[in-house]
Amino acid sequence: MDVDPSGGWDRSSRAAMALAVAASEDVRGTTSPNPPVGCVVLDAAGEVVGVGATQPPGGPHAEVMALRAAGERARGGTAFVTLEPCAHHGRTPPCTEALISAGVAAVVHAVVDPNPRAAGGADVLRAAGVRVESGLLAREVERGPLRAWLHYARTGQPHVTWKYAATLDGRSAAADGTSKWISSAESRAEVHRVRRQVDAIVAGLGTVLADDPQLTARTPEGVLADRQPLRVVVGEGDLPAGARVLDDSAETLHLRTRDVDEVLAALAGRGVVDVLLEGGPRLAGAFLAAGRVHRVLAYLAPTLLGAGPAALADAGITTIADALRLVVEDVTTSGGDVRISAVPAAPPGSR
Amino acid sequence: MDVDPSGGWDRSSRAAMALAVAASEDVRGTTSPNPPVGCVVLDAAGEVVGVGATQPPGGPHAEVMALRAAGERARGGTAFVTLEPCAHHGRTPPCTEALISAGVAAVVHAVVDPNPRAAGGADVLRAAGVRVESGLLAREVERGPLRAWLHYARTGQPHVTWKYAATLDGRSAAADGTSKWISSAESRAEVHRVRRQVDAIVAGLGTVLADDPQLTARTPEGVLADRQPLRVVVGEGDLPAGARVLDDSAETLHLRTRDVDEVLAALAGRGVVDVLLEGGPRLAGAFLAAGRVHRVLAYLAPTLLGAGPAALADAGITTIADALRLVVEDVTTSGGDVRISAVPAAPPGSR
Ligand SMILES: NC(=O)c1ccc[n+]([C@@H]2O[C@H](COP(=O)([O-])OP(=O)(O)OC[C@H]3O[C@@H](n4cnc5c(N)ncnc54)[C@H](OP(=O)(O)O)[C@@H]3O)[C@@H](O)[C@H]2O)c1
Ligand SMILES: NC(=O)c1ccc[n+]([C@@H]2O[C@H](COP(=O)([O-])OP(=O)(O)OC[C@H]3O[C@@H](n4cnc5c(N)ncnc54)[C@H](OP(=O)(O)O)[C@@H]3O)[C@@H](O)[C@H]2O)c1
Repeated sequence: MDVDPSGGWDRSSRAAMALAVAASEDVRGTTSPNPPVGCVVLDAAGEVVGVGATQPPGGPHAEVMALRAAGERARGGTAFVTLEPCAHHGRTPPCTEALISAGVAAVVHAVVDPNPRAAGGADVLRAAGVRVESGLLAREVERGPLRAWLHYARTGQPHVTWKYAATLDGRSAAADGTSKWISSAESRAEVHRVRRQVDAIVAGLGTVLADDPQLTARTPEGVLADRQPLRVVVGEGDLPAGARVLDDSAETLHLRTRDVDEVLAALAGRGVVDVLLEGGPRLAGAFLAAGRVHRVLAYLAPTLLGAGPAALADAGITTIADALRLVVEDVTTSGGDVRISAVPAAPPGSR
Repeated sequence: MDVDPSGGWDRSSRAAMALAVAASEDVRGTTSPNPPVGCVVLDAAGEVVGVGATQPPGGPHAEVMALRAAGERARGGTAFVTLEPCAHHGRTPPCTEALISAGVAAVVHAVVDPNPRAAGGADVLRAAGVRVESGLLAREVERGPLRAWLHYARTGQPHVTWKYAATLDGRSAAADGTSKWISSAESRAEVHRVRRQVDAIVAGLGTVLADDPQLTARTPEGVLADRQPLRVVVGEGDLPAGARVLDDSAETLHLRTRDVDEVLAALAGRGVVDVLLEGGPRLAGAFLAAGRVHRVLAYLAPTLLGAGPAALADAGITTIADALRLVVEDVTTSGGDVRISAVPAAPPGSR
């Protein structure tokens, strides 16, 4: 936990927090409405003696899992946690208590808990003589495993990532409607890994009627992942009886509405924190027009069509000055595709 | 010129060739139909004693310019040239002769001359006892300053780069037609630098009628660059008398045709090697359908519109299997925009 002269963190602290981040990634999609947190305990000599992550609601938090693994070796050691330890009695006792009674000398957390009910953990720890520091790998955690939950903690609303695949000229299908496959096998596999980590996948009725998608998380071989997000279909019309989205591979919710905020309220009511909006173009337009997209994840295939439906339909924008402005966070390539992650330039809601 | 154990080139050779590349970049747009070549001469001790680049047609080649600067210090030294020295008598004497009589001990060139008339330079040099190596920074040169000329040398046709600006959802304007500015100031400045380096800018009559562009290379302050590409407007209709493209800032050619190959033949006939196709959507579609786009340069702004004209119109593709497949060469960001350079997966013409 020593701070190096350049103001950074030492290598072993970074490695410990990186391990805590990895532990938290493993439980994404299983903890909502609680945050997916990771914790690593180093003993006084700096050796890893415990790793833990948040268990499903009602189960132990990350700190408790890691301290259990560490046992007596936690005494005099340091706990690295992706989120400030909670100080309140919820369904489980406060993590600050567990850390204090385990006798850790120091706690390093990546991000501060914005939740007024749970916050204050750092102060409680300090009052008990524990050294506390924060900010290590904060950006990685804020943009990664805790992105959705931090949004939810601040607003009470689920976080929405709109994901789409398109050609370089913005088409989501050819003129005759064919679209298999616009994006690369690698991009499609990545989307399935993302699906496994979210709480819900949302699609418009138009997409379900046109493509009859299963909306599940699967391996490239087509095997269902060990856990599945809630499938949500939005639209006033009827779902055909034989739709694949109604099979028994996962739970499905049909919300007979066109009101985006009604959708989000229904999802929040079910403890959904992290939403993957998979289109189609009209439902995505409605979410964008309502200012309810918090991240855009675009897979742009290096192909050109020159004709065919656009990836995004009416979002209520008619002139260039009203264009929805984003800031690119990250550009990578994925099996030949260009993958762009972007967030609204002005936070949605403030528009 | 020593080859290091890993099979690479030593640092001073790389630096010398990089300087030759920079010298060649400076003359892009002034040498067609000759290649923009750069040459750097190091003396026997490895010091830079001459830098040169191709002069306008009829003038000395890069090697002669660099050897003139080096004078007697070239003796026993090494010449780094971006292209294999020519061995034929054209408007100027062969460069191989100049190198031999200057007494250089070695010549390193980046790429081999594909032109059968000029080729064989390496053999002539070797026969005269000069050590010859090739391939240093070959990729940089092939994708950079000599890209267009190499295409022209192989095919006899001008090289076409289609450049466009669009939103992340592929729109080139909003529903009401407004489009100023889709791309960032940095991207627009970069396009002006590209314009200054090409031989011709091509635009469809539709774009000229809609936007009345000047189609010149300008500084961000609006000052005309020191040299201007030929402006080419393609379309059967009339150019309005007052069109800005008819002002006296550069030469303008109106080609009253809709035949892409007629356009390219007319340009080849004027010694045009490097063409920047700036749209609009219909003319770009025609060039793509004809297999006459050799590089796509996309500036994607991180904005969404959900409505408005597409960046690319009909390219004769109706089903996904016929999509025009590209390979991404390079993805960078430019003032917040995502800039993608891509080339056809199958070379145009082989389709
Ligand atoms: N490239 C991609 O990433 C991607 C992703 C998904 C889909 N797609 C393509 O998109 C096409 C379907 O397009 P689409 O626009 O019909 O799909 P959509 O947006 O999925 O569905 C539109 C339907 O959603 C319902 N809806 C709910 N709330 C709405 C609102 N606020 N505004 C408008 N509609 C709302 C309406 O159903 P009711 O009329 O019953 O109320 C409407 O008919 C398919 O061909 C599919 O392949 C592409
Ligand atoms: N985002 C960008 O990067 C970008 C770049 C340029 C333009 N634009 C926008 O594009 C819009 C204009 O669109 P547009 O499609 O009308 O422009 P265009 O492609 O520039 O012009 C179309 C015209 O080009 C002529 N043409 C020549 N050969 C042709 C061929 N083989 N096939 C079809 N047409 C051919 C035709 O004129 P004749 O009928 O007289 O033969 C036709 O009317 C403007 O609003 C402009 O702002 C955007």
